[in-house]
Amino acid sequence: MKINNKSYRTIWENQKGNIEVIDQRILPHQFEIMEVTSCKEMAFVISDMVIRGAGLIGASAAYGMALAAREGKLKDQPLEYIKEQADYLIATRPTAVNLAWAVKRILTVLENATESSYEDIAFEEARKISDEDAQYCKQIGEHGVSLIEAIYAKTQKTVNVLTHCNAGWLAFVDYGSATSPIYEAFNRGIPVHVWVDETRPRNQGASLTAWELGQHGVPHTVIADNTGGHLMQMGKVDMAIVGTDRTTRSGDVANKIGTYLKALAAKDNNIPFYVALPSSTIDWSIRDGIKEITIEERGEDEVHFISGLTQDGSVCKVKVTPPGSPGLNMGFDVTPARLITALITERGIFKADEESILEYYPEKKE
Amino acid sequence: MKINNKSYRTIWENQKGNIEVIDQRILPHQFEIMEVTSCKEMAFVISDMVIRGAGLIGASAAYGMALAAREGKLKDQPLEYIKEQADYLIATRPTAVNLAWAVKRILTVLENATESSYEDIAFEEARKISDEDAQYCKQIGEHGVSLIEAIYAKTQKTVNVLTHCNAGWLAFVDYGSATSPIYEAFNRGIPVHVWVDETRPRNQGASLTAWELGQHGVPHTVIADNTGGHLMQMGKVDMAIVGTDRTTRSGDVANKIGTYLKALAAKDNNIPFYVALPSSTIDWSIRDGIKEITIEERGEDEVHFISGLTQDGSVCKVKVTPPGSPGLNMGFDVTPARLITALITERGIFKADEESILEYYPEKKE
Repeated sequence: MKINNKSYRTIWENQKGNIEVIDQRILPHQFEIMEVTSCKEMAFVISDMVIRGAGLIGASAAYGMALAAREGKLKDQPLEYIKEQADYLIATRPTAVNLAWAVKRILTVLENATESSYEDIAFEEARKISDEDAQYCKQIGEHGVSLIEAIYAKTQKTVNVLTHCNAGWLAFVDYGSATSPIYEAFNRGIPVHVWVDETRPRNQGASLTAWELGQHGVPHTVIADNTGGHLMQMGKVDMAIVGTDRTTRSGDVANKIGTYLKALAAKDNNIPFYVALPSSTIDWSIRDGIKEITIEERGEDEVHFISGLTQDGSVCKVKVTPPGSPGLNMGFDVTPARLITALITERGIFKADEESILEYYPEKKE
Repeated sequence: MKINNKSYRTIWENQKGNIEVIDQRILPHQFEIMEVTSCKEMAFVISDMVIRGAGLIGASAAYGMALAAREGKLKDQPLEYIKEQADYLIATRPTAVNLAWAVKRILTVLENATESSYEDIAFEEARKISDEDAQYCKQIGEHGVSLIEAIYAKTQKTVNVLTHCNAGWLAFVDYGSATSPIYEAFNRGIPVHVWVDETRPRNQGASLTAWELGQHGVPHTVIADNTGGHLMQMGKVDMAIVGTDRTTRSGDVANKIGTYLKALAAKDNNIPFYVALPSSTIDWSIRDGIKEITIEERGEDEVHFISGLTQDGSVCKVKVTPPGSPGLNMGFDVTPARLITALITERGIFKADEESILEYYPEKKE
């Protein structure tokens, strides 16, 4: 997608053979690229959330492993060294499913290779993981755009899409999940406008989704998380599209805290509510999202403090709660399948129930 | 209620005959009292939200009219002058029904008075409005506490109450509406804990409700507005109590943006959702809240900027959105009566429908 009229991915190899990523910690106030030259540096990039988002964490971990394979050339026991680095990478974000998955995928290809080819093979596989992530997101867009087109065909008016948090291209290698149908519609010339939930407490909507939509030129408006229900009551939302961090085989969805509230409002106002996802987020081992998905409790400081730009142009944290008032910071909530109109994946659009999901993923039948 | 162990109201007359209010713009970081000496100053106090909240806006407008009556003494046509000031006051917050109501009440008593007694009569009536507001809120607490007591009697555990925005004593002259049953329960020794929605974009929950509960000693936890639905799913909310800025005769309720989302979540999880109000917020002329209540659109800067305390102890505004991203700031939403378990007023607790409301307010039958 575009930044200052130039096409970017969120992660790429530079001419020196090192990796470059966009530093997402300082968005939307500053745009900076960080060069990553070692596996240790990549571990920092992941743990310090220079990059975040399921798809991008996977691709970053894969490139981290490729750098480890390069470093391994100078070691007595290259594979031992690479495995040590693998453990180190996995420990950075223990709950990120794509991280361990990408690391293991690289280890598997190395185990069948000769020592001298480790670097080439690891880089090749990291490129594949990265390209696949972008390709899956592109397919989500190509499927999902039909839903936007259908609304436009009927109304001949700008299609208003509400989204929550950042399931944008910044969370993946390119295109994004929830945003991919929106970018596709925009690129095809369909008039779209996005309501961007700011998404407290970490404000990924205001700081990342608004920024990436703005850079690509997509019309959008930032709203407080409280606002979506009213806009739906007033007929100002045509559809909602959100992402998901973990999806059950029956179609329950764990996504950023607050998603459930927007799904309830969409249902109450007869507005379609879609969840876009690469199938890698489906946890085929569980059915009941509310009972079986443990919700991450994060530090309460994210409730007490908000980071932003001061008048003098520096980034600063301010405290918004009184001294002595405790805070609670739950990272996700579960939206039950009954509130979801359909899932949009790389394979197509289908209802959020086990039977419909398995029609598209027959290899997952028990 | 108490601040630093001293009892306060939110508005009072000082020894010089001027009005004093708590400057709510700088809470919870600083506690300062502002003296108001003219009707124009009172209009500023209302429009700039030095004070806010249905009841307190009413009492402030009444005192603003009293100050206008004092100023009118020096004018050729005192009543004309007072009426001009009345229009000026009413224009400050168009959605606030108590504002126009209080202004008109003062005008009515003046119309039957002699010119020389305007000031005395207006001040007398403003005092009455102020005392009535406190008295009505006290009665709301005395009725509403039975609902908390009933839950405690059944569970013998701390009763968890969720509230949105500030319908606390800071929004009235004393006690508050939504908080009044909570303070009453606390004062009676029933263990209560309050989930405080921070209430973006103006953060009245984090900055006012958390502060006033903390000052009075009531256990509470601040949460992002996105969190309430998840807490309800997890069984961590026993009841919700919110306030209202305007209520239809059929029980629809316009309250701070986001209230509707919490009412939907309460319904979905079978949790009682109460609205506490002095009957002055009932607009007897309307029935359909969604169609008939115009929702105030405020400046978008409240979405873009958040005010808080920096590390060096100064209050500072930071920008949380990217350059060029527009924001939309709707002040309220409408919660339909069908989502409300009951209304709690100064006369008692009853269902949110026209028949039940009129049983308690028979004088309003058409």
